[in-house]
Amino acid sequence: MSRKRILSGMRPSGKLHIGHLFGALNNWVKLQDEYDCFYMVADWHALTTDYAETGSIALNSREMVIDWLTVGIDPKKSVIFRQSDVVEHAELFLLLSMITPLGWLFRCPTYKEQLQEVTSKDLQTFGFLGYPVLQAADIMLYQATVVPVGEDQLPHLELTREICRRFNNLYGEIFPEPQGLLTPAARVPGIDARKMSKSYNNAIALDEEPAEIKKKVQQMFTDPLKLRAKDPGHPDGCVVYAFHVLYNPGASVRKEECAQGAIGCVACKAQVVEFVEAGIAPLREKRRVVSRQTGMIDDILNDGKIRARAVAEQTMQTVRGAIKLSHE
Amino acid sequence: MSRKRILSGMRPSGKLHIGHLFGALNNWVKLQDEYDCFYMVADWHALTTDYAETGSIALNSREMVIDWLTVGIDPKKSVIFRQSDVVEHAELFLLLSMITPLGWLFRCPTYKEQLQEVTSKDLQTFGFLGYPVLQAADIMLYQATVVPVGEDQLPHLELTREICRRFNNLYGEIFPEPQGLLTPAARVPGIDARKMSKSYNNAIALDEEPAEIKKKVQQMFTDPLKLRAKDPGHPDGCVVYAFHVLYNPGASVRKEECAQGAIGCVACKAQVVEFVEAGIAPLREKRRVVSRQTGMIDDILNDGKIRARAVAEQTMQTVRGAIKLSHE
Repeated sequence: MSRKRILSGMRPSGKLHIGHLFGALNNWVKLQDEYDCFYMVADWHALTTDYAETGSIALNSREMVIDWLTVGIDPKKSVIFRQSDVVEHAELFLLLSMITPLGWLFRCPTYKEQLQEVTSKDLQTFGFLGYPVLQAADIMLYQATVVPVGEDQLPHLELTREICRRFNNLYGEIFPEPQGLLTPAARVPGIDARKMSKSYNNAIALDEEPAEIKKKVQQMFTDPLKLRAKDPGHPDGCVVYAFHVLYNPGASVRKEECAQGAIGCVACKAQVVEFVEAGIAPLREKRRVVSRQTGMIDDILNDGKIRARAVAEQTMQTVRGAIKLSHE
Repeated sequence: MSRKRILSGMRPSGKLHIGHLFGALNNWVKLQDEYDCFYMVADWHALTTDYAETGSIALNSREMVIDWLTVGIDPKKSVIFRQSDVVEHAELFLLLSMITPLGWLFRCPTYKEQLQEVTSKDLQTFGFLGYPVLQAADIMLYQATVVPVGEDQLPHLELTREICRRFNNLYGEIFPEPQGLLTPAARVPGIDARKMSKSYNNAIALDEEPAEIKKKVQQMFTDPLKLRAKDPGHPDGCVVYAFHVLYNPGASVRKEECAQGAIGCVACKAQVVEFVEAGIAPLREKRRVVSRQTGMIDDILNDGKIRARAVAEQTMQTVRGAIKLSHE
């Protein structure tokens, strides 16, 4: 029996951090054993917001693939490819753009949100408005039936499903409607308690050096009501405690001690430094090895391109036939 | 010295009529001797308005190519190709969409006009809004420096030039700015005096049969003030006179006679029937010959695809390099 197909991707925004690890990658690694996974470097998507600064997209793409390999994405199990290597994404984007009502795009909650929030970049472009159409093309091109999503991405997936249904209504039942697979995502705060994000400068890299780990943990925000070691703390809102949960199997013990004032923040941080370092050390080592094998990265991307295009081209043949623009 | 390159195209809306001949094709034929001409069957463009009715696009495309060959577009001189055969159009469309401000598209005069005028089709799509972006991609893909246009198409060409400049500003001087070549277009009214158009059902086909020519000329609107043969007529507003101008070398004599009441509308029409038939007969005959050679049509489109893609791929290599998404 053939396995269900998954499509997921990330924009190449540079080296990844542990927010990506706990938020998505650990899950990607697991999914490989149950699904046929297509993991895409969404470099064309990067242009929707960064068309004016494209200089680092290619390098960031490679760094991201190195990170994927480091955490255990396995090119033998999964197809790892760059979006821009598969021109069929552009062809399907063009065709889907014809059937996508403007209103669907303008009403997309994330569209309005980003226009308000992101003020440092020009988002008033045709391409940025069409972001969800490109995303629909990405998923449909592989006839993926499963898409791992966080809750905040559900509106986008709903739009893909609507475009998918509209295509099927117009041209025949070609595409399966992709289902969202809500993925368990741990809470990963940045060291300042906001969401961990490269742009907030509050992230811990996947391969952070020991000295940096120590420094960043020391900078972590802690409970302002716990002034002395013996004051009872409130671990649930504490960044340090969040990292215990991520890395320390005995986190619940630490939580109790904190709440009872049995441990101070300085000692608590010293412990978390050790656990985080223990978790990151093997990744750091593996990343060092992987990143040296530049030929292997090329081979993996080349192989991914071939495997992705084979599926994409097959889909497009069906699509061209369905809309009666096939010239075969 | 290499010749300047021209890109022009038509949407495959079915068999052509003599409005196309005098409005564009006669000119296309002449341009072949002075320019490297790329003549495109804009079948993807047809989707911007007809995504819901795609059944006839492929057939219409072939019929249109037959018409082109009939009037003298020469595949030895020019590249005749289908847009959907050159996937690079979609890739450049995607990339240009990223840098095209939404405002430029919403403000395009033809966009607003068509939204108001065309009520029988759904134009509220992302793809229809992006029509000028696809058109810019068509032109830029061949680095065409010359685009034959009617006056009503100047706003579209201006938009292409703006997108072109914006690309060059962002990524380096890659594209020449295409210049409009204002083409002399004769006035070709339909038999009801409106603009000749298939959708108005007032057109005379390129290969109209003699009986149909006669019938259509008899239906032509004439000067309502010229009730009797001897009444002085007003040829400047008369459809029949417009056809004398197109087909009768002695049109000026006819004009005088009409104005003086020296000829009646019935006789005048009988004459125009002969001139139009004399003009159309060789096209009708040639079209019959051409349309039988289905293998030749395939060969021409296949050859056009190869020649067009060779240029398109070269352009895209430069483009990918310029925006630093080249993986070579």
